[in-house]
Amino acid sequence: MRWPDKVLVREVGPRDGLQYEKAILATDRKIALINGLIGAGVVAIEATSFVHPRAVPQLGDAEKLLEGLAEYGSEVVISALVGNARGMERALAMTHTQLSEVVVVVSASEAHNRANLNRSIDESLAELYEISNMAIGKINVRGAVATALGCPYQGNISFHQVNRVIDGMLAAGIGEITLADTAGMGNPRQVYELVTQLKGIYPGVTWSLHLHDTCGLGMANIVMGILAGISVLESSVGGLGGCPFIPGAAGNVATGETIKLLRKMGIDTGIDLERINQCTRKLSGWLGR
Amino acid sequence: MRWPDKVLVREVGPRDGLQYEKAILATDRKIALINGLIGAGVVAIEATSFVHPRAVPQLGDAEKLLEGLAEYGSEVVISALVGNARGMERALAMTHTQLSEVVVVVSASEAHNRANLNRSIDESLAELYEISNMAIGKINVRGAVATALGCPYQGNISFHQVNRVIDGMLAAGIGEITLADTAGMGNPRQVYELVTQLKGIYPGVTWSLHLHDTCGLGMANIVMGILAGISVLESSVGGLGGCPFIPGAAGNVATGETIKLLRKMGIDTGIDLERINQCTRKLSGWLGR
Repeated sequence: MRWPDKVLVREVGPRDGLQYEKAILATDRKIALINGLIGAGVVAIEATSFVHPRAVPQLGDAEKLLEGLAEYGSEVVISALVGNARGMERALAMTHTQLSEVVVVVSASEAHNRANLNRSIDESLAELYEISNMAIGKINVRGAVATALGCPYQGNISFHQVNRVIDGMLAAGIGEITLADTAGMGNPRQVYELVTQLKGIYPGVTWSLHLHDTCGLGMANIVMGILAGISVLESSVGGLGGCPFIPGAAGNVATGETIKLLRKMGIDTGIDLERINQCTRKLSGWLGR
Repeated sequence: MRWPDKVLVREVGPRDGLQYEKAILATDRKIALINGLIGAGVVAIEATSFVHPRAVPQLGDAEKLLEGLAEYGSEVVISALVGNARGMERALAMTHTQLSEVVVVVSASEAHNRANLNRSIDESLAELYEISNMAIGKINVRGAVATALGCPYQGNISFHQVNRVIDGMLAAGIGEITLADTAGMGNPRQVYELVTQLKGIYPGVTWSLHLHDTCGLGMANIVMGILAGISVLESSVGGLGGCPFIPGAAGNVATGETIKLLRKMGIDTGIDLERINQCTRKLSGWLGR
């Protein structure tokens, strides 16, 4: 049993957490939230999304937000979601800001990919190839495989389905891939086995894990991901980001809970729990919780 | 990574779950609950306690309850908590019923042992020796180490503190020992390391794990316990049994959640989830939840 000394916790609350919130949070408050998170020691934040503002009104202020961020230095990585070539153009126009990375999501489930992105997996992978080419020498591109551990429409996801998307991402030159349990359907054994298998086949890839706590297994899945060699975990401040299709479902694993678990197990994240709790309380107030 | 095919889940709701409930549940309903649990496939139930009725009024009907249970056959083990020699006398007077096992609890924490049992650990171990001698040839005795993974009064519990209680239990001839995370303070790495260490030192002992979900780590702790070789888990129907000193704290790990997790990981418990959910709903109604 090998426990790491250190794990990187990437904060996705400002993007994945906020995107389902109906009440629009003012750009100033989003910036204050990001500043607070960075002040707590967070060094990787998925800050916003370059999707069409009609699709996700909450994130319609991507440019304004990025322009408003302070200069954090090169050790802080600010990333944004990009859905298509138009989104990539918008991202490339922001490289004078702190933005240094984009994320492209493709689902392992054909049904989820169509529901989420309105196109087939093959179409998404072709677009990913195009987007990645646009980025060369300008901005880093990460990949994320949605529904990698189960799909609300299709149920179980086979290793072949995950593998196919990964092959497409690697062909596009991507070096870091997030395995996302979008619907929170994964179990600890499955997480361990999937990560172990992928690490064996693709030893050069950096794997990150994006978990939801929908079924109360978020913490158990984190532990088994870490034991399989995951070194990057994604979490959301306050656990924000429930699935809009499952009322009352718990959302992303919460940042505070994640770093508390890691700290108890002697694993360093460089993040101050008390300051994360302050961010959570402030955000809860703004969202009227 | 070795995953077992099968795990025994012992139900402790009728004893550990109900004992903190102020409203007394009628004996008939307790019997109906136990019958329902056994109908769902449960084969080990901690049914009641032979403590003084003034200390735990809810369990003052121990004899009446045991007399009222149906004959389940030898594959079902009904156990009861015993606190002292007087309790053991009461248990021995009930061996004509389904009762075939008693449990004796000693805390790894001196402060908790005094708060819970009003005596020192040495005094408890001496009494355990006496109780075990009374039981020889008549009834099986299990041991349980309370606060084995952390104490609300003393904080961290050292391996030596746990070990000392275990040595006392083994000297009394006990063959199965439950490690209880009474305050829900344990973390997955700690569970793994404690169980692994104990199994190495005492290969002949059967170890069971009694976990609380106070800090949201119940499921993660179950997984790491299983990977360390635990073959018996304790859980409570509906997660009943919160700590009376921590308002709102989650109680024992819930039976339904436990068997759902195990089933997802391909581990058989022989228990029907839907019938456990029926028991939970019925009990919730009786308790006015």
